Amino acid sequence: MAPPTATADSKNGANDYSKSAVKKVVEADQNGGNVSDEHALVLKTLRVLVADLCQQFKGGHPGGAIGMMAIGIALWKYTMRYAPRDPTWINRDRFILSNGHCCIWQYVYLHMTGFNDMSFDQLKSYHSDRADGLCPGHPEIEHEGVEVTTGPLGQGVANAVGLAMASKNLAATFNTPDYDIISNHIWCTVGDACLQEGVGLEAISLGGHWRLNNLTIIYDNNQITCDGAVDITNTEDINAKMRACGYQVIDIMDGNHDVELIVKALELSKKSDKPTFINVRTIIGLGSDVAGQAVAHGAAFKPEDVAQMKKAYGFKEDEMWQISQSVRDFFSDIVPRGKRHVAEWNDLLAAYGKQHPELHKIFVARIEGNTPDWEQYIPKEFPNKATATRAASGLVLNPIVEHVPNFIVGTADLTPSVNMKYNNMIPFNSPDLNPSTGPDGSYSGRYIHYGIREHAMCAISNGIAAWGRPGAQTFIPITSSFFMFYIYCAAAVRMGALQRLQVIHAATHDSIGTGEDGPTHQPLELAALSVDHAIKAKFTPSIISTSRHGIPQFPGLTSRDKVAKGAYVIGEDPGDAADITLIGVGPEFNIASSTADLLRSKHNLKVRLVSFPCQRLFDAQPRSYQRNVLQRHTSKNIPAIVVEAYTATGWEKYADAAVCMSKNRFGQSLPGPDAYKYFGYTADQIAPKVQEFLKRWKGGEVLRGEFEELVHREEYEEWDRGTRE
Amino acid sequence: MAPPTATADSKNGANDYSKSAVKKVVEADQNGGNVSDEHALVLKTLRVLVADLCQQFKGGHPGGAIGMMAIGIALWKYTMRYAPRDPTWINRDRFILSNGHCCIWQYVYLHMTGFNDMSFDQLKSYHSDRADGLCPGHPEIEHEGVEVTTGPLGQGVANAVGLAMASKNLAATFNTPDYDIISNHIWCTVGDACLQEGVGLEAISLGGHWRLNNLTIIYDNNQITCDGAVDITNTEDINAKMRACGYQVIDIMDGNHDVELIVKALELSKKSDKPTFINVRTIIGLGSDVAGQAVAHGAAFKPEDVAQMKKAYGFKEDEMWQISQSVRDFFSDIVPRGKRHVAEWNDLLAAYGKQHPELHKIFVARIEGNTPDWEQYIPKEFPNKATATRAASGLVLNPIVEHVPNFIVGTADLTPSVNMKYNNMIPFNSPDLNPSTGPDGSYSGRYIHYGIREHAMCAISNGIAAWGRPGAQTFIPITSSFFMFYIYCAAAVRMGALQRLQVIHAATHDSIGTGEDGPTHQPLELAALSVDHAIKAKFTPSIISTSRHGIPQFPGLTSRDKVAKGAYVIGEDPGDAADITLIGVGPEFNIASSTADLLRSKHNLKVRLVSFPCQRLFDAQPRSYQRNVLQRHTSKNIPAIVVEAYTATGWEKYADAAVCMSKNRFGQSLPGPDAYKYFGYTADQIAPKVQEFLKRWKGGEVLRGEFEELVHREEYEEWDRGTRE
Repeated sequence: MAPPTATADSKNGANDYSKSAVKKVVEADQNGGNVSDEHALVLKTLRVLVADLCQQFKGGHPGGAIGMMAIGIALWKYTMRYAPRDPTWINRDRFILSNGHCCIWQYVYLHMTGFNDMSFDQLKSYHSDRADGLCPGHPEIEHEGVEVTTGPLGQGVANAVGLAMASKNLAATFNTPDYDIISNHIWCTVGDACLQEGVGLEAISLGGHWRLNNLTIIYDNNQITCDGAVDITNTEDINAKMRACGYQVIDIMDGNHDVELIVKALELSKKSDKPTFINVRTIIGLGSDVAGQAVAHGAAFKPEDVAQMKKAYGFKEDEMWQISQSVRDFFSDIVPRGKRHVAEWNDLLAAYGKQHPELHKIFVARIEGNTPDWEQYIPKEFPNKATATRAASGLVLNPIVEHVPNFIVGTADLTPSVNMKYNNMIPFNSPDLNPSTGPDGSYSGRYIHYGIREHAMCAISNGIAAWGRPGAQTFIPITSSFFMFYIYCAAAVRMGALQRLQVIHAATHDSIGTGEDGPTHQPLELAALSVDHAIKAKFTPSIISTSRHGIPQFPGLTSRDKVAKGAYVIGEDPGDAADITLIGVGPEFNIASSTADLLRSKHNLKVRLVSFPCQRLFDAQPRSYQRNVLQRHTSKNIPAIVVEAYTATGWEKYADAAVCMSKNRFGQSLPGPDAYKYFGYTADQIAPKVQEFLKRWKGGEVLRGEFEELVHREEYEEWDRGTRE
Repeated sequence: MAPPTATADSKNGANDYSKSAVKKVVEADQNGGNVSDEHALVLKTLRVLVADLCQQFKGGHPGGAIGMMAIGIALWKYTMRYAPRDPTWINRDRFILSNGHCCIWQYVYLHMTGFNDMSFDQLKSYHSDRADGLCPGHPEIEHEGVEVTTGPLGQGVANAVGLAMASKNLAATFNTPDYDIISNHIWCTVGDACLQEGVGLEAISLGGHWRLNNLTIIYDNNQITCDGAVDITNTEDINAKMRACGYQVIDIMDGNHDVELIVKALELSKKSDKPTFINVRTIIGLGSDVAGQAVAHGAAFKPEDVAQMKKAYGFKEDEMWQISQSVRDFFSDIVPRGKRHVAEWNDLLAAYGKQHPELHKIFVARIEGNTPDWEQYIPKEFPNKATATRAASGLVLNPIVEHVPNFIVGTADLTPSVNMKYNNMIPFNSPDLNPSTGPDGSYSGRYIHYGIREHAMCAISNGIAAWGRPGAQTFIPITSSFFMFYIYCAAAVRMGALQRLQVIHAATHDSIGTGEDGPTHQPLELAALSVDHAIKAKFTPSIISTSRHGIPQFPGLTSRDKVAKGAYVIGEDPGDAADITLIGVGPEFNIASSTADLLRSKHNLKVRLVSFPCQRLFDAQPRSYQRNVLQRHTSKNIPAIVVEAYTATGWEKYADAAVCMSKNRFGQSLPGPDAYKYFGYTADQIAPKVQEFLKRWKGGEVLRGEFEELVHREEYEEWDRGTRE
């Protein structure tokens, strides 16, 4: 069962990185291999180039970039299928730099291989003050040749798993026995960090489980991190770990020079029935005096070190930018080769179109981003029975997902709870997988069981979303879990927003409503509208937050048009202006409503009732509308109070007080209705608080702009005293 | 090198969980083993008890609890050293239920073994509406016999690693060749989820690296999660993976009944030189009709199913709470045994005190929580040179850490950047570790290299903090990283807050100031005050946020007393009341200050300047102080504008407008000063904006309570249009 290896397999994936061992490699590197050797010249030229690029503004990450040069030649010159002049060619191999701080390495190859945007002038913008530069400190998705933005470690390798899944899914959907329309490969470099970060480990486990043999992870194993040698903090047997996760493992012992062997390993990885992990030993900052040391990682070398490096490599000591014509020539075949790749693929697609016109039509529409008319699948009617908003969200989304193959839905092991199952659902999985329950696997499946790996779910979804062209909606990934668990994936959700990737996060079970709460009608307008917005939002992730419990509805008083304005008046006492505006938020609106009833009947107050589902939509309305809804500008000086079953943060802009939870408190393990009562969310408990506040408001004890929190339970104050001394 | 195993070692850690295989075990379970067999009777009794407990309120997680019953006997009856009547005995073994949803299993054993608080009445509060119940849906640290609050998966196993480190550290510090004062063991059960979650995987890797042989991880391997069989989403070789991470692996094939073999494995784990992973095959919901199925996981069984289970087990079908005296007697030795453990240890401690009086004194003080007088170590003077707040924070904290051994400092591979190195620092590590750089390992070390594992760093720190008694400060863990990377650990930081554990998070490199920014004086007052507050806050984690870049200081105008009020006036034009209040926040105060200068000199405005380092402290001041600082209550209707290099969220309560970043924007890769300029944070750019706002304010275009964001760059609006349709 031993996997094929390009060299003898090492037991623990480590090598000798002692000072003396590194010194030997450095000497061999400088003395051995002369400039007539083509690869040696290219390697030395590009290493010196990186040193120069970091030198000009005394910043950047030279060490890893210099150490990975031989990997770079193997990938960009010999192995990857891409077209520098057609960087969004859809069947291109995808390259992900999960160790994003090494980006100058990627920028150098983008420049050398002829990407139009990456002029030499641009290359030199690395660490400069150019705000329009294409060489930021980590690679950014907006720029040619960069597939995803990386930097926060572990995200990139998860994105790579997502890209590999997307390719597998498209291939399984559109390829025919005679035509491999989608046949690209995903290459991902990782450093030590991506193999330590939890999100990377989760994604790696899934990549192995799904047998994504179109994925190759290349480990730049230089055994150095910021704190020093990796073995200070990590002594695991990485090769054994990767095999346990279902990877083919290949060792490269001299990753500094042995381009041919790296190429052989890369080619081997394309023929495996598993994803491949190539463990490439390199030396950080090779050629420099600080080779093999942590200090080579994140700072420019000393000027005298760059000089000695140039001298040892046979370059002029005091000259920058020494790139000979022969080095330029070495990469000159890439542009024409890329053009041939694209032309051949275009021919293939044309022939496919003749043989399979229907598939071709759908495929082209999918790639070009003409999403099928999904709006027709939003149900016009719903069953007339109790419905929680999590169920409502499913009722709206699922028929769309069923009929529109652009959607690919995932859950972090909460299928029974998040209501995202759709008719004729097929799980995404390897066809070789025959699980002990459930159907056999298929890569054409569009329901993803992520297991209990929320962070990887979101980071992988970013990768899936990044597969197509910007805004094309070739894939619209959906994730789902309890809202609380999205805190595990905050970093990935942020990265999706930063990259403006369309991922829809269906977050159920918001706040303390963990029990059933006496539902009456269906809260479907909000669900339909939020789904509508999320699908139209091509350049941003969306989170749809829904309740576990059923929510009373107010037929006739609410409408999709009103909801679309973010907030609206739902009930106002006739006659004179009201005494108070009461704002209800999402699942708490019904509490605000019953409180309004009580204030009217028992406390003889006039109440304006406002439903406020979305601050963002409300902010986009004209100020006149905003004032009309909130009525805080009139001379009557009516206060607004918001009811929110969470902390009040964010409501200070719209209200003068909040019935809310203390910032010092978490929830309580109780059935839903009991939890609401425990925290004071019943009309009986709220009404006196409102009246008392109104008194203090009229007496000038609270002024507009001074926001009050009307909290029912403050027990933590006592415990918390230590922080208040 | 094969590790010792209690049974034949299985290749992939999986077993046969097919329907027919499960059926066979269920039949054998019901027929085999009769009630005269002591263990069989206890197992059946407690399984039925769990079914009843879930039945009464039709809720809870019966399946896992029932499946783990034999593990429970092995742990609570035979292996763990603890004292039910002295639950905070300091040398007790610690038990962590990382699969927290199975808590009814733990509650049953707490009850049976005689923990005072866990009366039968309390046991029956599981899933009831009792707000004072001791049986919440997940175990909570506040209750007897529970070491940490678990529930969000993967956190518990990381906490267990932290507890094991704390024991190792104390043992290495206080044990002598003749006295093992600290000799406890850490036991942690995990389900499938904790082995999938990234935070668990990070912590597991560290536990292996540190060779924490006082840690045993017991895997309740029932191969079932919410979505069904584990092999739908996970097919890795977990045993090989754990071995690769440095664990001894022991297989138990019949974890449903074979108590003796489990005990043998547990005992074996105490003799290893590595941490141990025991892979115990169980069947979820054994005895029920839904045994081996996902539906057994999170819902009560059907009434007829409970009846058949009772019948098959030889109990009365229609009676609840059938616990025979012989089952009670089975556990009756635990209380006296616990008393013996404590008495023996007290004797040991007394003898230790005679032999090693100095050590004894320090040890007792440490346990009782008499933290040495750390305030004496706050430097009185600082070097008179440029200092960023991250450096200031280190200058204050490091001398304290050096002299007060209660502190244990960690970093996620950012030692060169976070300034937390202290004099005579020794890294925490196994004495068997001789890393290729740096000193050899020692468990008495108090500087923890976590590698690039931020989430585990924070979750492990929660475990370290939980080792001592509440508020005792036996350990005060410090974590450190860039502020941005704390988003990776949000879930663990939240769990620390929820448990009121004192962990200090030193978050450096806040916001866009990534470059040097022309420092003048030392910003040390704020650093000293924040450290002071964080150390005194025994019942909450703290985050100290510091800048990368140097910050100008205002000697004479600022003071520790003023800072302690959260906000204070630092400069006010004489004569009439000002035209505007300008609020500066942290590193942006100096920008507000120079803007004030410009507004005075060029725009002829009177400006009140406020420094506002902490909202929480300001909120704790009397309203009169607050109004005096902000002056928003006077008839002159002066607006307040805050300068914050981030989104304005949270400032709506204190200001009428913010010079801030757009909520639709992220940062930009530029040197620090250029980034500030790019986003409009210079006096030249802010002053005209302030004047323009003032015009609109005076014209009634903006009213108090309507908050405006004065954003310099809104480029994302265009991209973002899709969400606004």
